[in-house]
Amino acid sequence: MFGRIDHIGVAVEDIDAAMELYRDGLGMREQHRETVEGFGVEAVLLEVGDGHVELLRPLSAESAVGRFLERNGPGIHHVAYQTDDIDSALGEVRAAGLRLIDEEPRTGIRQSRVAFLHPKATGGVLTELVEAAH
Amino acid sequence: MFGRIDHIGVAVEDIDAAMELYRDGLGMREQHRETVEGFGVEAVLLEVGDGHVELLRPLSAESAVGRFLERNGPGIHHVAYQTDDIDSALGEVRAAGLRLIDEEPRTGIRQSRVAFLHPKATGGVLTELVEAAH
Repeated sequence: MFGRIDHIGVAVEDIDAAMELYRDGLGMREQHRETVEGFGVEAVLLEVGDGHVELLRPLSAESAVGRFLERNGPGIHHVAYQTDDIDSALGEVRAAGLRLIDEEPRTGIRQSRVAFLHPKATGGVLTELVEAAH
Repeated sequence: MFGRIDHIGVAVEDIDAAMELYRDGLGMREQHRETVEGFGVEAVLLEVGDGHVELLRPLSAESAVGRFLERNGPGIHHVAYQTDDIDSALGEVRAAGLRLIDEEPRTGIRQSRVAFLHPKATGGVLTELVEAAH
C-alpha cells in the first residue's frame, strides 16, 4: 500500500531555531517552505534521502498543531506514508475498519493529496497518507 | 550525513494487537522480530519501502520504553536516520554541540550500530542514528 515513509511531522515553537538545529546540527537541507492555511501551519520540508522532516509551526494556538504544542510541547507530531494512489489506499484502510479523520483526501503541502487516520485507530500514532502532486 | 529515514520507533503495550493493525489495516509485512535485551524491548520491524516501522514492547516497566508508555501511553517513541558511517556522523553531531545520550555507538536490532541524541538537544524529538551491520 505504501512506498516509503514520506516524512515525519515535527511540531516546533520557533521555526528558525529548529532550522538551525536540523541544518547545522543534523546536516539537512531546506527544500521547501510554505504556509499551509488549511492546516494552520507554516511548514518547512527538510531533505533526508527521498523522505523529509516536516517542521510545523502553528499559525494560531487553536490549530491542531497549536493544541498539540500546548498539550505535549515540541516533538514528533505525526508520521506520513507515501502512496501512489491515495483513493485506493484510503479505501483499503476504511475497509479494514480503521477510523479516519479525513473521509476524503484534502490538499496538503506542495499540492499533495493527504488524509489523516485517527490516532485512536492507530495505537496513538497520528498517521497520514500522502500522494504527491503529479 | 543521512541517507534516509531508517525507521520510526513506536511504543506499544500489546505487540500482537499492533501487528494486526499494521498488517491488516496498513498492509505492512513483518520482516524481523527480536528481543533486544540491551534496550529492554521486544521489537518487530515492519517493511515500508527501504524503511521500517519498529514496534517496541517493553520487557519491563523500568526500561526506557516502559517509562515512556507510563508517561505518554502508546505512540511514536523515536525517529532513526540511516548513516553509512555512524562514527563520523556522531562526530559531526558532537562537533555541532548537540547533547548525546550515547557517546559511543552501541549494538541495536540486527547487529546494527546505533546512538541516540538527547531529546533536549533536538526539540523534544528522540533521535537515533543507525548504521546497518555489514
